[in-house]
Amino acid sequence: MEVKNLFANLSQVKGSEEFLTLFENANVKIERIVSHSSPSPAGFWYDQDDDEWVIVVRGTAILEFANGEQVELHEGDYLTIARHAKHRVASTSEETIWLAVHVR
Amino acid sequence: MEVKNLFANLSQVKGSEEFLTLFENANVKIERIVSHSSPSPAGFWYDQDDDEWVIVVRGTAILEFANGEQVELHEGDYLTIARHAKHRVASTSEETIWLAVHVR
Repeated sequence: MEVKNLFANLSQVKGSEEFLTLFENANVKIERIVSHSSPSPAGFWYDQDDDEWVIVVRGTAILEFANGEQVELHEGDYLTIARHAKHRVASTSEETIWLAVHVR
Repeated sequence: MEVKNLFANLSQVKGSEEFLTLFENANVKIERIVSHSSPSPAGFWYDQDDDEWVIVVRGTAILEFANGEQVELHEGDYLTIARHAKHRVASTSEETIWLAVHVR
């Protein structure tokens, strides 16, 4: 039985956002996202075909939605981002670790 | 946008195991499991139709598999339990918080 750790091999590059797939099949992709003070580029919006359930495991972040709503997230906060709900990362702490479950 | 917190409303009943569904659709169920020093009953085995990806968010636990293998899990450790891989919780710390993604 193979056990891995979510906090292993964290990159340390300030301003970067790093994606690592932890599980994937036809219906679901689970990924770790590590953000280092890394907002999405200005004017960029995620517009995804899948629903995304996401939780902040470490750090803080602010998500911004195309309707102008901003959501401040702390450790343990989770939400579901419906498919095609346009959103971007407005800001993150120095090291924010997310767990995202993309559901087809 | 509705935000909830994984650490809200934790029950405190020693010896209990508590399940809370965080997201569910036809393909996926995401749940929080809170274990309080709560091994599975002796001789009981989980035998699930779905693959389960599981991570320990807080605390520690030991999983036992029907082939005799024991796996010790610490904070951040994750693994995939294949469907019908019979397993049980051999032991947990006083408060172990799991995040489980059941994938159809």
